[in-house]
Amino acid sequence: MKSIYAPVQEEMAELEDRLRAVVNVDFPLLAEILAHVLKHRGKRIRPAITLLAGSLYPSDDHDLLVPMAAGVELLHTATLVHDDTIDNSSVRRGSATTNCLWNGSTAVLVGDYLFANAAELVSTTSNVDVMRLFAKALMVICRGELCQNSCSFDWLQTRESYYQRIGSKTAALFATAAESGGVLSKAPKDKVAALRDYGYNLGLAFQIIDDVLDFTGDEVELGKPIGSDLSQGTMTLPAILLVEKYPDGNPIKDALINRDAKALRKAIDTVRDSTAIRESCEIAESFCDRASADLQTLPNCPQRSSLRDLIDYVLERKK
Amino acid sequence: MKSIYAPVQEEMAELEDRLRAVVNVDFPLLAEILAHVLKHRGKRIRPAITLLAGSLYPSDDHDLLVPMAAGVELLHTATLVHDDTIDNSSVRRGSATTNCLWNGSTAVLVGDYLFANAAELVSTTSNVDVMRLFAKALMVICRGELCQNSCSFDWLQTRESYYQRIGSKTAALFATAAESGGVLSKAPKDKVAALRDYGYNLGLAFQIIDDVLDFTGDEVELGKPIGSDLSQGTMTLPAILLVEKYPDGNPIKDALINRDAKALRKAIDTVRDSTAIRESCEIAESFCDRASADLQTLPNCPQRSSLRDLIDYVLERKK
Repeated sequence: MKSIYAPVQEEMAELEDRLRAVVNVDFPLLAEILAHVLKHRGKRIRPAITLLAGSLYPSDDHDLLVPMAAGVELLHTATLVHDDTIDNSSVRRGSATTNCLWNGSTAVLVGDYLFANAAELVSTTSNVDVMRLFAKALMVICRGELCQNSCSFDWLQTRESYYQRIGSKTAALFATAAESGGVLSKAPKDKVAALRDYGYNLGLAFQIIDDVLDFTGDEVELGKPIGSDLSQGTMTLPAILLVEKYPDGNPIKDALINRDAKALRKAIDTVRDSTAIRESCEIAESFCDRASADLQTLPNCPQRSSLRDLIDYVLERKK
Repeated sequence: MKSIYAPVQEEMAELEDRLRAVVNVDFPLLAEILAHVLKHRGKRIRPAITLLAGSLYPSDDHDLLVPMAAGVELLHTATLVHDDTIDNSSVRRGSATTNCLWNGSTAVLVGDYLFANAAELVSTTSNVDVMRLFAKALMVICRGELCQNSCSFDWLQTRESYYQRIGSKTAALFATAAESGGVLSKAPKDKVAALRDYGYNLGLAFQIIDDVLDFTGDEVELGKPIGSDLSQGTMTLPAILLVEKYPDGNPIKDALINRDAKALRKAIDTVRDSTAIRESCEIAESFCDRASADLQTLPNCPQRSSLRDLIDYVLERKK
């Protein structure tokens, strides 16, 4: 990861400073919760995309990339806080969630605060276009989450509805992360569009691998229990492919309708031992190929190589 | 109300069009919930302030006021949706809440969507300053709500902490509503500051009267049960003044510590029959006087008269 981020090493350090500064509020309870939420940092893939995409072209506004990247990461963090509250999850990134350590009400308000702080960070770019992209991304993410919630425990879902759902829930923010970098560095319009497509395709692949890892991953590495999705009634690509192949007599239907632990265990094991895992990975690879193609017309430079390496990382990651 | 809004009658009609358009989404469930949330409209005080404040000075950017006003109203609506979810309230404006008709998770996501849509509306002004004001207002509101939550059922609170709390929770958005009108119409800096102060003081008075009505109002007119605040453990000005006057042997402490229906009933009746109600109204009046003074240096025109009349309305309202 360190080598992928090498071309924007300094900016990544500034990003950390910006995120640390979020905790500096004159209300001790809020400061404490923010410190907890931000302590368990993720892989910073989304902000790295903004920084890398924004460094492909020379620009006078290079210093606007860090607050934008921080806004993207904070928006992502806010959605995680609300997701955990909605799913009543107790563990995230191997640590207790806000809703678990405090309570659901507090988590809703802290998530709202993070949304607002993210928007405030983006507003320091003084660029109306990225501010609009940011607001629209959040609208699309909420739509995707609501869609996922409304079709939970519905065992009969199509791949197409899944792609649309993860496109909203996950890929939209990857796309915005990449596009905003392009916009802020004043890249040509067609290159901004290519960056957006790159982000979108990479985001789809990222979510598919995430959904595969929910079946095949290591609980300690993942920092959450295996089979969380299915136990919350969320149908992901591996489960959808299994149902496609065995419309009758598959254990998914049983698990989602009866909702008992034994049926769920059987469904998880069946998915894990089936070809649906490999097929899902192949589909993720095909989205990665598209992301790779989107990079073709961009300037050949270390930043582009890193965006390319990020694709491989997404495919090969174990957590 | 109609006469107060007369100078911006056309813009108020456009505002309704803008808010109606929010429902036009290509996801039937979301459209249905948004239609429900927006059907039970409030008094539109906040957006009216933006429109009136923005019309005090001639400007070429007059058409930016309506999306800004719509953003302000939608932000307010979003906070109500989350408030009801947090408080587990079942009734708002005489109608079932989103968390009650659907569920808490859905209400969290729909509130998030409304925040995003509000930000998107504000972004259509292409004015970075109001976009920043907007983001900061939401940060302050969340802080205020969190503060209120964290000191609930604490019967010993000072007036000062109360003013700070309602300043964040309510007055900040009134201030932003007024200030953004001033900014968009390119009013002189000192006049923008006066508008902000006007909004802030009016917002404080508005919340105090709201808190008085929670004790003295009519359940049907209010559209919610009397004594809601105290039953949720929220200490408001009338209760604080009563405790100030009778630190020992007052029924508030009993109601908040024992949390039983009889003690609560007694506490509500005691506050209602005490001088704390009149004193709270007098304090609200003093904030209204300040709001009135803030208007003095602004151009003498029908819009200013309406901002003045709005003060009287806030003081005399019954719901």
